[in-house]
Amino acid sequence: MTDSRFQKDFLNPKSIAVIGAANDPARIGGRPIDYLKRFGYQGQVYPVNPKYKEVMGLPCYPDVRSIPGPVDMAIVALPAAGVLDSIRDCVTKGVKSAIIFSGGFGELGAQGEKMQQDIAEVGRESGITIVGPNCLGVANLRNRVIATFSGGFNTEPSRIVPGTLGLVSQSGALAGILLPMALEMGISFSYWLTTGNEAGVQFADCVSYLAQDPDTTVIGGYLESVRDGDAFLKAARAARASEKPLVIVKCGRSAAGARAAMSHTGALTGEDEIYEAVFKQAGIIRAYDVQELLDALYVFGLGLRLRGKKIAILGMSGGIGALMADICAECGLEVTSFSAKTTDELRRRLPPFGSALNPIDVTAQFWTDPTIITDCLQILLRDNLIDGVLVLTGLAIGSLDIFSDGVSTAVQSTNKPVIVTWMSTGHNEAVTRLRAKGIAAFDDPRRSVGAMGVLAAREDIINTPEAGELSVAFTSSHHKAASIIGSQNDVLRICREWVPDRPSECKVLTEYEAKRLLSMFGLPIPRGEIVRSVEEAVRAADRIGYPVVLKVQSPQILHKTDIGGVKLNLSSREELEMAFDGVVDTCRKSRPEAHIYGLLVEEMLPKGGTETIVGISQDPVFGPVIVFGFGGVFVEIMRDVSRRVAPLTRWDAEKMIRELRASAILNGVRGMPRRDVDALIQILLQISEMALHLRDVVAELDINPLVVWSEGQGAKVADALVVLK
Amino acid sequence: MTDSRFQKDFLNPKSIAVIGAANDPARIGGRPIDYLKRFGYQGQVYPVNPKYKEVMGLPCYPDVRSIPGPVDMAIVALPAAGVLDSIRDCVTKGVKSAIIFSGGFGELGAQGEKMQQDIAEVGRESGITIVGPNCLGVANLRNRVIATFSGGFNTEPSRIVPGTLGLVSQSGALAGILLPMALEMGISFSYWLTTGNEAGVQFADCVSYLAQDPDTTVIGGYLESVRDGDAFLKAARAARASEKPLVIVKCGRSAAGARAAMSHTGALTGEDEIYEAVFKQAGIIRAYDVQELLDALYVFGLGLRLRGKKIAILGMSGGIGALMADICAECGLEVTSFSAKTTDELRRRLPPFGSALNPIDVTAQFWTDPTIITDCLQILLRDNLIDGVLVLTGLAIGSLDIFSDGVSTAVQSTNKPVIVTWMSTGHNEAVTRLRAKGIAAFDDPRRSVGAMGVLAAREDIINTPEAGELSVAFTSSHHKAASIIGSQNDVLRICREWVPDRPSECKVLTEYEAKRLLSMFGLPIPRGEIVRSVEEAVRAADRIGYPVVLKVQSPQILHKTDIGGVKLNLSSREELEMAFDGVVDTCRKSRPEAHIYGLLVEEMLPKGGTETIVGISQDPVFGPVIVFGFGGVFVEIMRDVSRRVAPLTRWDAEKMIRELRASAILNGVRGMPRRDVDALIQILLQISEMALHLRDVVAELDINPLVVWSEGQGAKVADALVVLK
Repeated sequence: MTDSRFQKDFLNPKSIAVIGAANDPARIGGRPIDYLKRFGYQGQVYPVNPKYKEVMGLPCYPDVRSIPGPVDMAIVALPAAGVLDSIRDCVTKGVKSAIIFSGGFGELGAQGEKMQQDIAEVGRESGITIVGPNCLGVANLRNRVIATFSGGFNTEPSRIVPGTLGLVSQSGALAGILLPMALEMGISFSYWLTTGNEAGVQFADCVSYLAQDPDTTVIGGYLESVRDGDAFLKAARAARASEKPLVIVKCGRSAAGARAAMSHTGALTGEDEIYEAVFKQAGIIRAYDVQELLDALYVFGLGLRLRGKKIAILGMSGGIGALMADICAECGLEVTSFSAKTTDELRRRLPPFGSALNPIDVTAQFWTDPTIITDCLQILLRDNLIDGVLVLTGLAIGSLDIFSDGVSTAVQSTNKPVIVTWMSTGHNEAVTRLRAKGIAAFDDPRRSVGAMGVLAAREDIINTPEAGELSVAFTSSHHKAASIIGSQNDVLRICREWVPDRPSECKVLTEYEAKRLLSMFGLPIPRGEIVRSVEEAVRAADRIGYPVVLKVQSPQILHKTDIGGVKLNLSSREELEMAFDGVVDTCRKSRPEAHIYGLLVEEMLPKGGTETIVGISQDPVFGPVIVFGFGGVFVEIMRDVSRRVAPLTRWDAEKMIRELRASAILNGVRGMPRRDVDALIQILLQISEMALHLRDVVAELDINPLVVWSEGQGAKVADALVVLK
Repeated sequence: MTDSRFQKDFLNPKSIAVIGAANDPARIGGRPIDYLKRFGYQGQVYPVNPKYKEVMGLPCYPDVRSIPGPVDMAIVALPAAGVLDSIRDCVTKGVKSAIIFSGGFGELGAQGEKMQQDIAEVGRESGITIVGPNCLGVANLRNRVIATFSGGFNTEPSRIVPGTLGLVSQSGALAGILLPMALEMGISFSYWLTTGNEAGVQFADCVSYLAQDPDTTVIGGYLESVRDGDAFLKAARAARASEKPLVIVKCGRSAAGARAAMSHTGALTGEDEIYEAVFKQAGIIRAYDVQELLDALYVFGLGLRLRGKKIAILGMSGGIGALMADICAECGLEVTSFSAKTTDELRRRLPPFGSALNPIDVTAQFWTDPTIITDCLQILLRDNLIDGVLVLTGLAIGSLDIFSDGVSTAVQSTNKPVIVTWMSTGHNEAVTRLRAKGIAAFDDPRRSVGAMGVLAAREDIINTPEAGELSVAFTSSHHKAASIIGSQNDVLRICREWVPDRPSECKVLTEYEAKRLLSMFGLPIPRGEIVRSVEEAVRAADRIGYPVVLKVQSPQILHKTDIGGVKLNLSSREELEMAFDGVVDTCRKSRPEAHIYGLLVEEMLPKGGTETIVGISQDPVFGPVIVFGFGGVFVEIMRDVSRRVAPLTRWDAEKMIRELRASAILNGVRGMPRRDVDALIQILLQISEMALHLRDVVAELDINPLVVWSEGQGAKVADALVVLK
């Protein structure tokens, strides 16, 4: 669905037609012409409107075909009804791309959706690149292609200098609001892109474009929903490969937020947990509001890097220092202890009432001795055990120059990040002046700590091994299974070999079938056989070895235990025989309609294992999703599960396990030894590969439980269910 | 430890001596004189310093005793060494209160602590009210008593008009930084109080004072640690009784935050979970940083009330609306659906591309039609199913007047809160102008939603029943136990009656003793007897009825099960006899040093109960703390426990249960019926009363597990341990 023809030249047109041109610069068809002129666009601008001969001093054409020279880009500012014809005209004219401002398409229901699909179709067939409809356009700040009607650009062009931030937004209004906020912070843009209803160019296309753009070093985005999961992941990975931070604010965490996004762009916002997982996997930093997004883009734009998590807090209020320390803990930063040498140097510089512990309190001494903070900063930056410094000051605007010179000097001698918080009187002026000197500065301690936290998150992403290094070592059985099973029919055919009288169309695999399928892909299952008579059961148990378990197998009986369809720990032939008749009788009585394939005789698994669950589900956008959790109350009551989109790397699998709130259970609690985490990781990776291979075959897989024993003892699938698509 | 003589007059002195007076208004001894003069204090100011004849045009006295007239308040700005003598002079002179700026006391270690205690002692003996040492002083804005050296007041006095916010801060620097931030937001103060090391006046005294002050309607605080838990709770309840919102920011959530607070005021910051519990119980709204504190104080200062949780979001960006909806969900607000009538009215006013769903998107139409938002606001405010409205706008500063007039009109016709977010260009000016019109406004959607969330939290507090209505109905056994047991010796004496050969000094109560003690206070325990021979065991079992359990009783064996000291489900005399010898042998072998009192024979409790834990611990500041959680992994792995300080109300007990992440377990999961929550609440209340009665007797109580059966089936103490103080 993404527009693969989205080329570098697209955002560098030599000529632009504005279809639906207007003389009034406040109108949607007038604004882009006004912007292009005022911002100094160097190419040709062709107003198009049959009503005018001239627009804003430029000759105006009745239609795009009448334009004498070639047209690279068309801006379409017509009512919805006229858009399709106009795009067809553009195709005839040989226009390479069309930016459609017009609303009234997918966001308004079925009829609009139909028109939008027609436009997309024209785009696909003709090769013209479509942006929108229902978008606020795009801007290439370097070449002054201001192809938008957003009020955000309605300012003095000299204020909008080209920079290195590439922004992509599915909401045009949000991008417009964000622009002046960013400028105020000293953030400048390479590209500013809105995608609207995404009939052609999608969010992911823009990210891919920015990932390869040499003028862009940081990528920011506002996302409501992804239409093509693979393209999105590929784009995010391209950004990561090009070493550009990618920060995205994504709405839809709440039901109301999702509803808003839906009515807004006419796209279904996916389940938020999946996005959370995808962001983690793809190295995307998630922001939770516009301010967080801008703060992250700002510090990344300064090129700051935080190599470790050890932070010093240096300020003139013990109280606010203590609050900052609390926020550091929230953000995963460590308010570190200092070396004896550093403590000693600090003590010598601090007044007797000051604190040389972290957070450092220089006290009111700062008013009479304004270099005290910058002197202490020098001491801290010399300490190899400190990775970054948060400086807190304020009130005495008169000492700003001394202070900012001192910080500048200190910062120039280090590659560690220093983030200044200037609170209270004159904070706007102080922060502006500090930023003008290239010093990272905020007027709110929470934002400063948050920005430092974002640097730490970025470093974690940089330190995450690439997928390539870490893929699972497949078993030969996996390769064999993959070569045999290519479709749903293959699975059903093989199941009939295992269970000859199963209905060939039955899409629910019983435990026995599901386990054998898993086993084909190399997953560890208990020894077991399906039997249809007590004699077969006894022979099977002899081969397996006592004790055994007995479980009814029927696609209609999913909760076997509840109806007495399971007998555990049968330690002799006699017990087995008695149990066999009992299970058959009970099941026939309570579920007379059930088609019973037989009974599964299986080795009794050793006690002392930890129960986990592993599942596959299918996300409409991102495809197979792997789910992991601990069994019983952890999933049922605590909803403590982790998710990742297939394929997993070893790193992903490890994080899936570690991020569970109950992950301590694997360290062995209540006197139990450590669990076999390696076996668990291996299984998660195998499930991930199997999920990918069977993505068009399997609708759902539940392993519940997967029992994990102590280190070196492995894990086994104790029960499983597969539902085919 | 609190200063009960802290009187209303204290902050209304008719005359003030400044001891350690200086001519330089930038110096600590000069600033208060300068402030008192500039702010127009109407009483007498007496500089005191043997070095000068005159200070800032006022006659200066060599010591406080030489001052001709009476002195109500003394400000002490001397080095630490001279403070004690100076306070003694003040006592001689009849000074009523002393504000000690000087540092160098408790925050600097043992020697300073000694001096501080001496000062406190003089205060207690003489009746002089002491504030500080190591504080930044106090200010009564109404009577212009600016008795501080904080730089926060170093501004044009006309900017600091008296208002209705009373502020108390244990950090002087923080209070100073906060002041201009508050003024910028249009918040004005009745009192501004810093308490420093709290040798006399404590945080709680100030809150109590403000609770009864008619000029104060909202109370804010910065807290590092409470010294007297009872006084603190009493003060918070006084604020609640006077219907004044109390908002406190408390540091020390992280280890580093706590360390900072410790080095800062020389007080031990208590465990944060206890504070979290106390705040909930006492109806205190907790803020997590300075900005949150100010935002809450600001909206409370406007007198806004939010009667329900149903919020409408009305804006010109679907994207930001969606993000605000997400933040609403975080804050416990409901982004509600609209009635058909409201939807219809909105549709008629909105452009065709707009969304009449919540969040409402008026689209870019706002630029050409600036009354669209205020018209929609009117529609929303008329809908009885909407409790409050968040309005989002920005960019077009030119339309600010039309917009703000429209909002003003709408707000005047309603008692529902309307909070405006003005983003982007001109946000500082826009927010200032909106606020000047009395409209609640922020420039950041997170802050707007947060402020609405705080109004909701306040309403929850108002709707919480008072303690008085809800106290537990005590059992007669409770009253009897309370009359018998007054001291630790009483407990030990009674235990010896139950177990004649127990060492009378042993402070660990075995399960049998602990259960009998609990039973005396009316708590439900299993039938059981302690026995010393197999014959006694058999006779006991006959009385109790089979099946029974057998448990070794020894103060040295706390984990009975681990060493084979417990046998369950003994269903016959034979099983009991066999088990008896087994338990005795095993325990003698594995713990030969243990003093075994005997074996407890007890009824076997029915299966199918839910295991919970209930405990009492002693907090050094707040006294007995009740802890509740679900047994096993929930506590051990998930750390899912709730805490409250005794006494509990029924409401507290209910909230303790409901706030657990696993509370759904009580609704009956996996096909089990609902648990007997009423019995559980009753037990929590009984434990709370017992904890209060035994607060000087019991160091620790652990009921683990307390088994709760289905509704109407009650609960029983299955195991318990008591450690005396």
